[in-house]
Amino acid sequence: MPSYKAPLRDIQFVTNDLLNFSEHYKNLRTDVVLDQQMQSAILEEAAKFSENVISPLNAVGDQHGCKWSADGVTTPPGFKAAYKQYCEGGWPSLAMPEQYGGQGLPESLNVMVSELICSASVAWSGYPGLREGAIKTLVSYGNEKLKNTFLHNLVSGRWTGTMCLTESHCGTDLGQLKTKATPIADNEYSLSGTKIFISCGEHDMAENIVHIVLARLPDAPKGTAGISLFVVPKFLVKEDGSLGARNPVNCGSIEHKMGVHGFVTCVMNFDGAKGYLIGQPNKGLEAMFTFMNSARLTTALQGLVHSEVAYQGALPYAKERLAMRSLSGVKNPEGPADPIIVHPDVRRMLLTIKSFAEGFRAFAYYVAQQLDLSDHGQSEQQRSQAKNLLALLTPICKGFMTELGCEAAHHGVQVFGGHGYIKEWGMEQNQRDSRISTLYEGTTGIQALDLIGRKVLGSKGALLTNFSDIIQTFCKSQDSNPQMAEFIEPLKQSTIDWLNLANQIGQSATTDADELGAASVDFLMFSGYTILAYFWARMASVSLHKLESTTDDKDFYNSKINTARFYFQRILPRTATLKLTIQSGAQNLMAMDSEHF
Amino acid sequence: MPSYKAPLRDIQFVTNDLLNFSEHYKNLRTDVVLDQQMQSAILEEAAKFSENVISPLNAVGDQHGCKWSADGVTTPPGFKAAYKQYCEGGWPSLAMPEQYGGQGLPESLNVMVSELICSASVAWSGYPGLREGAIKTLVSYGNEKLKNTFLHNLVSGRWTGTMCLTESHCGTDLGQLKTKATPIADNEYSLSGTKIFISCGEHDMAENIVHIVLARLPDAPKGTAGISLFVVPKFLVKEDGSLGARNPVNCGSIEHKMGVHGFVTCVMNFDGAKGYLIGQPNKGLEAMFTFMNSARLTTALQGLVHSEVAYQGALPYAKERLAMRSLSGVKNPEGPADPIIVHPDVRRMLLTIKSFAEGFRAFAYYVAQQLDLSDHGQSEQQRSQAKNLLALLTPICKGFMTELGCEAAHHGVQVFGGHGYIKEWGMEQNQRDSRISTLYEGTTGIQALDLIGRKVLGSKGALLTNFSDIIQTFCKSQDSNPQMAEFIEPLKQSTIDWLNLANQIGQSATTDADELGAASVDFLMFSGYTILAYFWARMASVSLHKLESTTDDKDFYNSKINTARFYFQRILPRTATLKLTIQSGAQNLMAMDSEHF
Repeated sequence: MPSYKAPLRDIQFVTNDLLNFSEHYKNLRTDVVLDQQMQSAILEEAAKFSENVISPLNAVGDQHGCKWSADGVTTPPGFKAAYKQYCEGGWPSLAMPEQYGGQGLPESLNVMVSELICSASVAWSGYPGLREGAIKTLVSYGNEKLKNTFLHNLVSGRWTGTMCLTESHCGTDLGQLKTKATPIADNEYSLSGTKIFISCGEHDMAENIVHIVLARLPDAPKGTAGISLFVVPKFLVKEDGSLGARNPVNCGSIEHKMGVHGFVTCVMNFDGAKGYLIGQPNKGLEAMFTFMNSARLTTALQGLVHSEVAYQGALPYAKERLAMRSLSGVKNPEGPADPIIVHPDVRRMLLTIKSFAEGFRAFAYYVAQQLDLSDHGQSEQQRSQAKNLLALLTPICKGFMTELGCEAAHHGVQVFGGHGYIKEWGMEQNQRDSRISTLYEGTTGIQALDLIGRKVLGSKGALLTNFSDIIQTFCKSQDSNPQMAEFIEPLKQSTIDWLNLANQIGQSATTDADELGAASVDFLMFSGYTILAYFWARMASVSLHKLESTTDDKDFYNSKINTARFYFQRILPRTATLKLTIQSGAQNLMAMDSEHF
Repeated sequence: MPSYKAPLRDIQFVTNDLLNFSEHYKNLRTDVVLDQQMQSAILEEAAKFSENVISPLNAVGDQHGCKWSADGVTTPPGFKAAYKQYCEGGWPSLAMPEQYGGQGLPESLNVMVSELICSASVAWSGYPGLREGAIKTLVSYGNEKLKNTFLHNLVSGRWTGTMCLTESHCGTDLGQLKTKATPIADNEYSLSGTKIFISCGEHDMAENIVHIVLARLPDAPKGTAGISLFVVPKFLVKEDGSLGARNPVNCGSIEHKMGVHGFVTCVMNFDGAKGYLIGQPNKGLEAMFTFMNSARLTTALQGLVHSEVAYQGALPYAKERLAMRSLSGVKNPEGPADPIIVHPDVRRMLLTIKSFAEGFRAFAYYVAQQLDLSDHGQSEQQRSQAKNLLALLTPICKGFMTELGCEAAHHGVQVFGGHGYIKEWGMEQNQRDSRISTLYEGTTGIQALDLIGRKVLGSKGALLTNFSDIIQTFCKSQDSNPQMAEFIEPLKQSTIDWLNLANQIGQSATTDADELGAASVDFLMFSGYTILAYFWARMASVSLHKLESTTDDKDFYNSKINTARFYFQRILPRTATLKLTIQSGAQNLMAMDSEHF
């Protein structure tokens, strides 16, 4: 079983050399001053906590899973104690508003901490993670009374939260939901209905659980225009803030899943549970969407996490496992065979994983900067530019990174040969755990429709050119550097293709709306590969500069350049196929009658 | 949980319309006469057995797994009874030699039956499956005494068999193996050592288990030149054929795996177990390789099986599940939403799976014909041509089909959205079960080296042109048919690229042997996509002909043509990327020092 080691050196590279977080922090209008040194100190603590407290729970959580009884859900051994330690360490409140007891640090720092904790155990990390959506909802849409009632304890982590959206007959298509909310008093409602797939809906880690619930008021319009948002606590809260009666919201059963066994997924029954309206009646869905970006980024992180875990597992194995001799000559003459890292195909898998993990870190941290700027940028122009970037990048980050996170996890197993299929090595758990990431928080297909439909075509291309301009400006800045040509030329071409494909899809869609869906996922993946090429080109540029300007850590920077080269020569060419399949149009999908499948 | 339905209509299409098995059977020099009608009757019985007896055990096997105790291994509830029924039905002996009680039917028929049983439960199908390798070894290399002692009971299924190759420190690299065989009497040896990953090494389904074991004689040369082959029964067999003393070969523990839980994987300890030499001393590995083709084809079938299971699960769900409206207009006005099969991206996933499942069936059954012909072809020329085809096609069939079987299983989960991750739908089990297929019987990397190294370059291209000539002859035969142009033109181009790439790799490898490994897996995949294009073009051609010549089942044939079109427009373009990555060479993999990964 691999033990997790936080990749602090690479995080330092991304935050320091690549994305200049010191400068970034100065651009935020926040009370709390953060610099690189303080960031490093916090991450070192987060690393210790992740490595020493959370990582050992990962296999335990998978093995034990969560146990349901009519009295509640028991989490795997050690989960509760670790959560207590997490709260005591002040981690839950890191990036939360100071007025509710938070530390007011930037969200981007929370993203970095989340990467570490999630890498140590994706199952465990869900419990504090789900809470964040509830907090954001209440901060943005709750009235003062609700805020005062719930936020301090959510921020401190004493209480956790959930998002209750899905019902058995509708996931994505929330317009079909049926849970009812009947008024019983001023702003108080009685909620009845059944929600499924409720992450952390019931567990033993916190004193109270605060459910954010989508439901319909009586006489609400049909479809998505008739959905309202409520807060429904497990225990009602008295005026003095202490816990009161048990609210009739109960976990009817828990799901048996492929992976993330330690992360409980509940069927939640609302049997006349008392709830409070958040925001305006029938405007619940809009309220949900406002913080979807940060929830999707958190899920996108899993793509990075499963790649990182695959790499940390596969690399030492590839260096230690002896099998066959290198075709180009014996490399380990004193041993009975060569370590498998000498074999080109093993290296191909390792470099694929590495180029994903490190590329995703750059991509995700860049998006995290935009999250900071969208809320706390100094100028309106800065905030609005960040929002525009987030609008485009979020579905790509979520869809693309999680799809390739699954691929990385697959390679992680493959490097181990037959041993990869055995539980004790942890690689199969990583693959099982990764599989949820392309499904929840909107499937890849949903992200792809959001990207091409709402974002790219919905903005008449403005959101796309907004980012492609950034790429092209970077390319121009490198024109005079012949060492960068191997990266810049394909990046330029891929960006031009990207814009052209968006245009072509837009034009086809004017005569047949199914052209959108037919191109959508391939377009999302094309976008992702192009953007990752941009980050790998930037990382190569920074590394070349470092090699010229310092004598430290030359191996690290050379490794970056080699990995960038691998990415451009072995991964970016996937766009050649995607271009062809996007251009093949909708007919090859739509011609067949459903009955003839 | 999906219940399996044998795809008899498609099998009929492949065996009847596409590959003309009636004619094929006539080409075999066997005593038993088989025609299409008898084939259909046997397959209908196999379908009933698979659907009614085996399919219900699939989820049970996953849930219960196998239980180890010092006394032995207990298989999941129902496994043993089903095996008894399987033996009573005469299935174990279908394609076995008549002189040992077999029915002498062609191996290809056994492949078809295996497809059905394996689709119903890949875990259950392993028990009878492993036996076949043991039988083939004894038939080919055993002396008369060993044949008489073991074969009748193996053929009838009363005893099962294993292949004991792997040790903890060596899987592929068998030259490292350490198990010792010490002579104790004429042709009798005492075996000591530990084998791992022994499929069906211990269980409760049969009276005896016959292990075929690789071990070293005293003073054997180092490496692969010093490996001999032995037969080691669980219970010694007395002169009269009855069971005697328990041989000290014991299951020390069983593996906890990602999937195929009902299929036991054992650590086997040989503590001075009595064994008998098979064949010549130190020639064990060659003996193993002679029947590797059929073992690898059986594993390749899993690619077909996991695609078929994914399709049988995902298709009805896509037709029933209501979510969102079609972008091109409401399709189900009386319902609250449209079935998700109206959405182009859901169709993209379904057609991907369908094009794999049906394409693989054509490919696998064609290879099965070559298995028949290689043993029982009328002329030496026929047998040798079949052997040449098998040599080339086996690694492709195994590596390519299992990789895409995993992809199909991934899509099968994805079509279900969040529900795909839940155990009750069976899709996640299919994905877990599929994951072993690219690992055992030689990983994809091993298949790929066998293909490009031993087969393509080892034959100086002769094995490759032997098959590409068949493709090109087919293309010529279609030149006058304008309806076929959309398939034939890309198939021609892909075949030319295939030959060119093989040449290029061969040339690069003359200066750097690592160029082989660097190109190997991408070349294997390129080969697979080209070959599948050939079968899809042939299926389109047959279907166009049928549409012109009969009025029956037009929907079926139109569906074939639509799927062929999908394959050529959406799947074959993957070769565009593979061509680029193959041509990118070994440098991008080998430049980095192992320590800098």
